[in-house]
Amino acid sequence: MSSLAGPRLSRRIEAALDRALARAGGADAPPRLAEAMVHAVVPGGARIRPTILLSVARACGDDRPEISDAAAAALELIHCASLVHDDMPCFDDADTRRGKPSVHRAYGEALALLAGDSLIILAFEELARAALLAPERGAQLMMILARTSGMPGGICAGQGWESEPRIDLAAYHRAKTAALFVAATQMGAAAAGAEPEAWPDLGARIGEAFQVADDLRDALGDADALGKPVGQDLRNGRPNAVQALGVEGAVRRLEDSLSGAIASIPSCPGEAELCALVRLTARKLVPVLPVRTTA
Amino acid sequence: MSSLAGPRLSRRIEAALDRALARAGGADAPPRLAEAMVHAVVPGGARIRPTILLSVARACGDDRPEISDAAAAALELIHCASLVHDDMPCFDDADTRRGKPSVHRAYGEALALLAGDSLIILAFEELARAALLAPERGAQLMMILARTSGMPGGICAGQGWESEPRIDLAAYHRAKTAALFVAATQMGAAAAGAEPEAWPDLGARIGEAFQVADDLRDALGDADALGKPVGQDLRNGRPNAVQALGVEGAVRRLEDSLSGAIASIPSCPGEAELCALVRLTARKLVPVLPVRTTA
Repeated sequence: MSSLAGPRLSRRIEAALDRALARAGGADAPPRLAEAMVHAVVPGGARIRPTILLSVARACGDDRPEISDAAAAALELIHCASLVHDDMPCFDDADTRRGKPSVHRAYGEALALLAGDSLIILAFEELARAALLAPERGAQLMMILARTSGMPGGICAGQGWESEPRIDLAAYHRAKTAALFVAATQMGAAAAGAEPEAWPDLGARIGEAFQVADDLRDALGDADALGKPVGQDLRNGRPNAVQALGVEGAVRRLEDSLSGAIASIPSCPGEAELCALVRLTARKLVPVLPVRTTA
Repeated sequence: MSSLAGPRLSRRIEAALDRALARAGGADAPPRLAEAMVHAVVPGGARIRPTILLSVARACGDDRPEISDAAAAALELIHCASLVHDDMPCFDDADTRRGKPSVHRAYGEALALLAGDSLIILAFEELARAALLAPERGAQLMMILARTSGMPGGICAGQGWESEPRIDLAAYHRAKTAALFVAATQMGAAAAGAEPEAWPDLGARIGEAFQVADDLRDALGDADALGKPVGQDLRNGRPNAVQALGVEGAVRRLEDSLSGAIASIPSCPGEAELCALVRLTARKLVPVLPVRTTA
């Protein structure tokens, strides 16, 4: 999937990630681990989470772009870390990711495990750097990212549900996919000094849409758009919206989520731009399906 | 190894860890992952890092004990996370830790991987919580912990060196063991509002001593004191001070490090108490060896 961001946002995101990775790979770094971290992050996928983050920051004024950039990099680093660990043999055992070998295939399991750990820590280091410049915003950003990535409700919890004998489906979906989209909208607001509490709904709705679209692509076998092997949910016994609702039902659910996302955008100067972003997201998410995004 | 802390510090550390784990295992948490996190942290080892942290905080006045407690918990959580991941099959493949099954033996590799990730994030969440109360101190604490745990110079980097074809021994030891002791002294100072830049030397010296003591125990086969299998360094081809210097040379190195640690304590009201802690540490580190700790 190509980038969702316009060229300006895209440049900001890639530059912020490059700066963070350059620091992590600095003097005295073990070189192969540093390489494995770069392999995990660059070149990226759609960068959808940091794009949403920066779009919300812009809608809220983006008066401290260096803080928003750090937040965007932190969020994408956590996402990349989760992909590295999820691909490992004890989870999906995926050979490829974004059209190239997964990190453990390219560098071995030990370095994949460490690359994931190091990316998680690098994400928080980016926020610490922001906090040294703007302590109150930094503290908020850190708390949002920790809650949406850890336990009991973040992406670690989401992945953890897959190891439970009985699964709480609502908690699973909220944590597994929606959490980092909630992080995107809330961190975008917090980075710009706005109230993050107005923004979780937009993230949750986009996350819901994203999960259903991912389920559709997995079930319909669009490996190119997915950038990873298809049919994994069925093989790994994971819940999938297409199995639960059928293709048409899943498409309807996707449309509802996107309409809900647009309806949930708080009133702000950048409202129109954000609506456009959600519509663009919809087209990118499921390119082969006719998706109505206006309710 | 029993706790190094006096009963008051020990109670503070355990209470702070229990509070953090209770939050992580809160409503909607996948229960087995929450259990695996507790298994990794409680009951603990010597809690040497948070004990040093709180001792330095006290030496610096400890005017915000809730901030020091959060810092102590965060540091111990990162340490426990590193033990969980280091024990996994792609690293040491250790069956036991602290006298009970390692996390991956008890809960499987998937949950061990996630428990480690979740503990890392929980550590930063504790600091985010501190940062919401004291934003400037929180930002400093976060930066110190990120630097000493991630790349290029933290414990992830230290572990990463073991996967390199050529090892930078100085960087390896600095990152692998000393980093979290530097974190202990610097975070103790920062938590109490003192200047962390005066404190890295004490941590580095204690870390050096700790590494040599660990090497001695591994080589001399004191599995009880170590709480994990012995002879692993030789088996895993890891550098070990006993191989490099012989037993007597390693003991001399240990004594030098401890004398250096005592000499490096910055002038502060709690100086005498800190000296006593370093001496106690020495006796605990190598109970079977006669260690002179006064130069």
